[in-house]
Amino acid sequence: MDGHPFGILRAGHAELLVTDIQKAKMFYVDVLGFVVTEETDTQLYLRGVEERLHHSLVLTVAERPAVGHLSFRVTSNKHVESLYQFYQSLGCSPVYCEPGEESGQGLAVRVRDPFGFPLEFYAEMEPAECLLQKYHLHRGAAPRRIDHFNCFVDALQDCCAFWQEQMGFCLTEYVETDDEPRELRAVWMRRKPNVHDLALMRGSGPRLHHVGFWMDDILSIIHTCDILGGAELHEHIERGPGRHGISNAFFLYLRDPDGHRVELYTSDYLTIDPDLQPIRWSATDPRRQTLWGHPTPDSWWKEASPVMDLVTKQVVEPTGLSVPSMGGYIK
Amino acid sequence: MDGHPFGILRAGHAELLVTDIQKAKMFYVDVLGFVVTEETDTQLYLRGVEERLHHSLVLTVAERPAVGHLSFRVTSNKHVESLYQFYQSLGCSPVYCEPGEESGQGLAVRVRDPFGFPLEFYAEMEPAECLLQKYHLHRGAAPRRIDHFNCFVDALQDCCAFWQEQMGFCLTEYVETDDEPRELRAVWMRRKPNVHDLALMRGSGPRLHHVGFWMDDILSIIHTCDILGGAELHEHIERGPGRHGISNAFFLYLRDPDGHRVELYTSDYLTIDPDLQPIRWSATDPRRQTLWGHPTPDSWWKEASPVMDLVTKQVVEPTGLSVPSMGGYIK
Amino acid sequence: MDGHPFGILRAGHAELLVTDIQKAKMFYVDVLGFVVTEETDTQLYLRGVEERLHHSLVLTVAERPAVGHLSFRVTSNKHVESLYQFYQSLGCSPVYCEPGEESGQGLAVRVRDPFGFPLEFYAEMEPAECLLQKYHLHRGAAPRRIDHFNCFVDALQDCCAFWQEQMGFCLTEYVETDDEPRELRAVWMRRKPNVHDLALMRGSGPRLHHVGFWMDDILSIIHTCDILGGAELHEHIERGPGRHGISNAFFLYLRDPDGHRVELYTSDYLTIDPDLQPIRWSATDPRRQTLWGHPTPDSWWKEASPVMDLVTKQVVEPTGLSVPSMGGYIK
Amino acid sequence: MDGHPFGILRAGHAELLVTDIQKAKMFYVDVLGFVVTEETDTQLYLRGVEERLHHSLVLTVAERPAVGHLSFRVTSNKHVESLYQFYQSLGCSPVYCEPGEESGQGLAVRVRDPFGFPLEFYAEMEPAECLLQKYHLHRGAAPRRIDHFNCFVDALQDCCAFWQEQMGFCLTEYVETDDEPRELRAVWMRRKPNVHDLALMRGSGPRLHHVGFWMDDILSIIHTCDILGGAELHEHIERGPGRHGISNAFFLYLRDPDGHRVELYTSDYLTIDPDLQPIRWSATDPRRQTLWGHPTPDSWWKEASPVMDLVTKQVVEPTGLSVPSMGGYIK
Repeated sequence: MDGHPFGILRAGHAELLVTDIQKAKMFYVDVLGFVVTEETDTQLYLRGVEERLHHSLVLTVAERPAVGHLSFRVTSNKHVESLYQFYQSLGCSPVYCEPGEESGQGLAVRVRDPFGFPLEFYAEMEPAECLLQKYHLHRGAAPRRIDHFNCFVDALQDCCAFWQEQMGFCLTEYVETDDEPRELRAVWMRRKPNVHDLALMRGSGPRLHHVGFWMDDILSIIHTCDILGGAELHEHIERGPGRHGISNAFFLYLRDPDGHRVELYTSDYLTIDPDLQPIRWSATDPRRQTLWGHPTPDSWWKEASPVMDLVTKQVVEPTGLSVPSMGGYIK
Repeated sequence: MDGHPFGILRAGHAELLVTDIQKAKMFYVDVLGFVVTEETDTQLYLRGVEERLHHSLVLTVAERPAVGHLSFRVTSNKHVESLYQFYQSLGCSPVYCEPGEESGQGLAVRVRDPFGFPLEFYAEMEPAECLLQKYHLHRGAAPRRIDHFNCFVDALQDCCAFWQEQMGFCLTEYVETDDEPRELRAVWMRRKPNVHDLALMRGSGPRLHHVGFWMDDILSIIHTCDILGGAELHEHIERGPGRHGISNAFFLYLRDPDGHRVELYTSDYLTIDPDLQPIRWSATDPRRQTLWGHPTPDSWWKEASPVMDLVTKQVVEPTGLSVPSMGGYIK
Repeated sequence: MDGHPFGILRAGHAELLVTDIQKAKMFYVDVLGFVVTEETDTQLYLRGVEERLHHSLVLTVAERPAVGHLSFRVTSNKHVESLYQFYQSLGCSPVYCEPGEESGQGLAVRVRDPFGFPLEFYAEMEPAECLLQKYHLHRGAAPRRIDHFNCFVDALQDCCAFWQEQMGFCLTEYVETDDEPRELRAVWMRRKPNVHDLALMRGSGPRLHHVGFWMDDILSIIHTCDILGGAELHEHIERGPGRHGISNAFFLYLRDPDGHRVELYTSDYLTIDPDLQPIRWSATDPRRQTLWGHPTPDSWWKEASPVMDLVTKQVVEPTGLSVPSMGGYIK
Repeated sequence: MDGHPFGILRAGHAELLVTDIQKAKMFYVDVLGFVVTEETDTQLYLRGVEERLHHSLVLTVAERPAVGHLSFRVTSNKHVESLYQFYQSLGCSPVYCEPGEESGQGLAVRVRDPFGFPLEFYAEMEPAECLLQKYHLHRGAAPRRIDHFNCFVDALQDCCAFWQEQMGFCLTEYVETDDEPRELRAVWMRRKPNVHDLALMRGSGPRLHHVGFWMDDILSIIHTCDILGGAELHEHIERGPGRHGISNAFFLYLRDPDGHRVELYTSDYLTIDPDLQPIRWSATDPRRQTLWGHPTPDSWWKEASPVMDLVTKQVVEPTGLSVPSMGGYIK
């Protein structure tokens, strides 16, 4: 994976801004079973049961729910520096984040990218204990590891070209219209060899549609539904369980107490062969959304998390289609 | 189970009238994996992989889709005769169905019951090979065995009382309104000791809402969705997979090519203790329908199979709320 | 089920004598996820997540591991009294156990039966909360409910005839030799309509081979293996997971800290039809033990829990084949 | 993955020599559900349901069971040529295999490597239809894709160093003795980022221990056991199902009609991070073999498939510890 000048390995972690850290902890730790690596009054550093690094999900208290940053792991600090220079050459005003500034993390670069997303790139992170085989300590959904980010962006065509041409991502699946000129509606792109590290859907942005976490199997996703149902937290279930046509993933979409969307995801496929042809789906094919033909709730199409400006620390208003507000999704 | 004068053991089999026997065979045999015991130009006698008797589902060609009869197994021919006399005493004009008249079956009594349902009771049936452990021969959903019937009836309160008081059924769960006077909305009643052999829901009737078949586990139900999705037969999936609050069953509702509804069902509980208290659900509690909070499609609430009059062989027009027509559910 | 004079409903609960109640609690509660109804310094009253009665498993501190009693639920106190008289007529010296003498239980009769087993029969038991749908509270294996007892007895033929002819049990499966005169080697008998409430295997007795608990599905059994493996408690796994030919059950056999054997069991079949023919297995057919052909460990064939004499409170020395001692199975 | 001069992507396919192609077809196609891409009187070209290339398993008729070749896919023909030159520089006499010489395959190089293994490297292969989402066409175990090769080699230390240093493989897990000087006993090495493409175990070699195929989930492995058991083919089950400590894989080992060993494998983990520390297991730790503590059958430790000499077409006699013969494993 060193072949590309930026050496991006995979989706690394997300920072989500939440308005009530205790409610967020109840949801992510007590119910979903994320493992706590570090906890302060204002932050939670979480990881999946398979992960050996400090965090794949950071929850930070803020006044409004938003995305702090979306972070990709790269192979070395050399690539962190290359990315700094690259974004600087684009006029994006990247900043370095010194080792330890984000707990457990080495040198990183943060930048508001040309499409408005608050990105971070880092190579080094402190190790944490892998709980994969400590099955007696698993709780709730016991998510395995982070898998991908899915974002809304207005200029989908340009953004997709940027990630493929500049950042070294491979396209694995895409949705486009049938009429000429064909228009892209959504793309799935990967560095690590499964279906995606980053998906982009056309819509008002920059917004985060969801963070996807890998699950061990279908039944652990079904069990998560039962846990949420049993605890009378079923309102957190937005969509699924079901089988996506796209990616073949077995999915469940949850909304956290601030409305951030989390996908529990399993059963996609290996994409390591360089001649693997991207799969095209027609925007009118209902099977792309689900192989089983279930309708998708309106909220799933429309609602998403706004992002924070890394400099001003203000929530960025998305542009494009009008967007429902996020606040107080689940009381 | 001999304690009651009619010795009803369990839901035994259903006869569904279908308009195209080849389409029906494709659905029930090729896709769902029912086992064929006997086949003629106009009829299919099917059973689940666990069953050791000739049939639990009969498909018969007819001009309109409808229910031929719903049949309960009793412990002996003595009880068949008692049931004949009982229904005669009610003025229902039962008729005997001689051994072999229905293929594989011994003496039976058929009757249009006081609520309009075409019922049959029988004790004897020819054995058939049990394929339970011949896993290499299982196909598709590989349903295990028949579990229950679910029907719409207008006079729910009376009908429920009839099955409890006259037929010896035990109530296990029920839905009623919260306001006084409380009104029953649906009941689950059993002879065999799981949640039900017969459920009744208030609605225009007599109509069959669905026949339920027991499945080995949750994943075989998920796999059925994938098979239907893979074969581009997803339109047959009406609702689910999901977890009912009522009965705790993991469910999937399918519609056959004529629109008859079949439930694949598993994971309910043992009800053999005579002091088991029926579980009450409020008609406004969304968790009764599903523990996970999913909406129920309109069709599920409204559409159901009409029944045939056992004497006139005509489809009976349901009474009560207006009812959508059945014809041509899936082209 | 009232048809028989003793009205036995099902296997009700077992009392196991354990030498260290804290170790036993760790195993049954912390690891396996049994629900605690009541706890004292010397006793634990446990139930499965589906159960609505006070207990299905009682652990009592004693100097030696043994079986306190095996208990069947009957439909009413009238039957408790009939059983008292029946065993008295056999010269067995039954005793009444007054309501509350065993916590949560109504009137019971206890007796050392003609084959040496310490039996109890009761009709009434205090209710307890059903946790079936409180999935967020399930832990570990989350056993659903008690299913059956399996015992070694020397005089198998007589003991089997006793339970069928006197106690009203139905034979569902049996193992016998092929040579004439054929000899019974093991029998599975039921009151509730699945494969068994009581199995008997020929061997030095009276001893309890295992208590079987019903599990939700195969994956919860696999998950139990992972939990035990993760906690480095794999020595408690004696046999399985696997698929019995007999009963078609998916099984896992565990040994508790005192060596008592517990089976986690699922996927057998409905046996309610009175004309269901018992399935015969040849004693030389390896598929009876497992459909997958795995060898059975020697300990499984030989080791079992001795029983306590209800009067003398002494452990009864089994007769017949020589028997390995139980003490200190897992240190 | 282009970073390394040989650009190896992953384990690509194996050619197994079988003595009876019809028996082999029964096992791999009818029972296990491999998909047939091409079939002649003497060869079968098979693939998993997820695969989009011509074959991942080739069965070829021969007089003795052996391994024809083990084949790795590389990113381009340029790498095929580099590998030719590399092995030539080692004095190994590689030969080119022209496009189409192996059906469906482009240019390849074949070589008996310094450790005696018959290897092949290729970049190009004809596409084949992906059946992943055609769930209605899946049969039997429905293996997803090839995952890895596991081989016995006498000079383990040297062979391991060769694959790491020369071929660009990463070590993910290893077994060594505790006593100084520590001795390697087994290694797991990967190109694609899960636990392995190639495992090596110390033993008389060159021999193939097994080819591993990725499965969708645990239950599809359990279902495979039931299918084999149901068809009375349980003798093909050699070991498992179980959970390896090493790799965390859920596994099942089967023996084909010629004794070649196939592993059905799922549930290992992502290894893409370059700083991932290899996991060390002590050769005396029983949990490395299985987390559940089951014994490993003797045959699994000792028996393996010999390899064919690519030039002489003769089976190579393994050196090192004495080796049981392969012939007639399952009659």
